[in-house]
Formats: sequence, C-alpha cells, structure tokens
Amino acid sequence: MGMPLEVQTMIVTKGKAERQEDYSYRLVKAGYRLYPLDVPLTVHKTKDAKSHAIATIYSLTWHENKTEIQYKLLDLHGVN
Amino acid sequence: MGMPLEVQTMIVTKGKAERQEDYSYRLVKAGYRLYPLDVPLTVHKTKDAKSHAIATIYSLTWHENKTEIQYKLLDLHGVN
Amino acid sequence: MGMPLEVQTMIVTKGKAERQEDYSYRLVKAGYRLYPLDVPLTVHKTKDAKSHAIATIYSLTWHENKTEIQYKLLDLHGVN
Amino acid sequence: MGMPLEVQTMIVTKGKAERQEDYSYRLVKAGYRLYPLDVPLTVHKTKDAKSHAIATIYSLTWHENKTEIQYKLLDLHGVN
Repeated sequence: MGMPLEVQTMIVTKGKAERQEDYSYRLVKAGYRLYPLDVPLTVHKTKDAKSHAIATIYSLTWHENKTEIQYKLLDLHGVN
Repeated sequence: MGMPLEVQTMIVTKGKAERQEDYSYRLVKAGYRLYPLDVPLTVHKTKDAKSHAIATIYSLTWHENKTEIQYKLLDLHGVN
Repeated sequence: MGMPLEVQTMIVTKGKAERQEDYSYRLVKAGYRLYPLDVPLTVHKTKDAKSHAIATIYSLTWHENKTEIQYKLLDLHGVN
Repeated sequence: MGMPLEVQTMIVTKGKAERQEDYSYRLVKAGYRLYPLDVPLTVHKTKDAKSHAIATIYSLTWHENKTEIQYKLLDLHGVN
C-alpha cells in the first residue's frame, strides 16, 4: 500500500494555467505529482513543445488525487 | 540545485496538531516533508513515543519551506 | 514526462525475500518504489497481514522498472 | 524520523563522471538524491554552467548515504 506519485522535471500547462497577479500562475494537474519547489523549471504548452518560459514553483498542494501548483515566471520568452 | 525533502513514514505532532471538525487535524512542520497521502500512518506525540493513533493524510501543502498536512484519525487509541 | 513512483511506508515480501548472510534480506519489486532508507519499517508477508518484523533498508536500486532493496531485520518477531 | 533526500532536475558532474562503454557514464554523489529515471535531463559540469548534453538515467542506487547513477547521453553537444 503506497502512494502513487509522478516525479516531474518540467511544467506542462496544456493551456490550462490561470494567471494570477503579476507573473504568477496557478495550475491544477490530475494525480499526485512531485514537482521540486524553488528550483528553475522549464514551462511548456505541451510535453513535446519547446519551452516558452522558465519558472519556479512556490507552492504545491496535494488533495483528492490532484496536484495544484503556483509558480512565478523568471524568464519571459512567451507566456502559456 | 535540488529541493531538499525528508521522506516521512509517521506523523509526529509534538503536541502542535490543531483539531479541526470531527476527527480531523491540521499540523505544520518546518521544511519540506514528503508524507504519503491516503495511506495509514501511525501518529506519535514525539519521535520516540509509542503511537497513540492511526491516521491518513488527505491534504499536503508545501509553501515557504514549510509543510502543512491535514489528516483524519482512523483508529482512536488516544488523541494528540 | 515524469517518472512514476510509489511511496512505500512498509515492506511487503509476498514470500519473495531472499535471505542473505545473518539477518539481511534482498527483495525485488516491480515498478519504481520509493522506500526510505535507514528508517525502521514494518515487514509484512502480504499488505493486509500483521507485521512480523521491523527492518531498515540499507540499499535501494532502481533499474529497468524494478526496485531492488536490501534490508536488515532489527526486531525478530518471526521471519518472512 | 525521516529520510533526507534532494530532488534533482539535472545532472551536475563536477568533472567526476566516469565513462563506461559507448556513451554511458557512472557518477557518484554524496547524500541521497532523487533523480527521475528514463526522463531526459540536462547535464552540466557545474550547477551554473550551461548544459553540454542531454542524458537519461537508467540506473540509480542509494547506499551508505551516497547516490550512484548511470546515465546514457542522448544528445552529444560536448562531453563532461
């Protein structure tokens, strides 16, 4: 009996990221995903698309088999 | 550059768990801690104390180098 | 693209642990499993069986979608 | 009582990777590090250096507070 997790090394938005104030975004993904916080990650619209930004995640919540992350763009070469 | 984490296999309250409605509790720990969700864990007042309850964590949040968990007691042989 | 993992809080042998020298065992599980090392874990023959021993894992290897662990029994209330 | 880990999103060799046959390398790092397997990661000589290759890790071992990884270069823009 364990907890299924997926270790992630990048943020894939699928166009579902919600913009919050300034350059911060909120994204909800299905399942429990382990994203490193406070570490620069590339942001991609799809898994195979080139990265269009660099961001750091500053908050992660696991609840009811979903993962919610909040991240701030560091490097703005295109958004979401 | 990585994210420091501590993998946890039990809940140690140090008497700081806050009771919420019915048998659910909220606990904030320093640092990022990886607790498995939806898996029965023993609850201890201190690391070396005998477990006084079994609980499952239903929510975990990492933010500003702290970990907040919310858990529900399954087996009530003594509370916090 | 991430790595699927399962966070484990106990050792379930299903009778497949191989005894090595003295009280140390080797066990191979399907898939990538995240077991904490150097932390006492309960050992069970099946997921729902009562624990028959306490052990600490001293080595873990992930390779070709399998997890191999080596552990030492701390508390011998029955073996595998 | 938990297991300290560091979640890694890239391979930093510090010039210590040992070449094995064809384009596969072996690297030992201090402490327990969680690298995702079978996922493309950038390879850097130092944490702040530009990445000089892309690789996937095909084996990871935790033992005696060290992490040993074996990885294969996918994209060869310069080696170690």
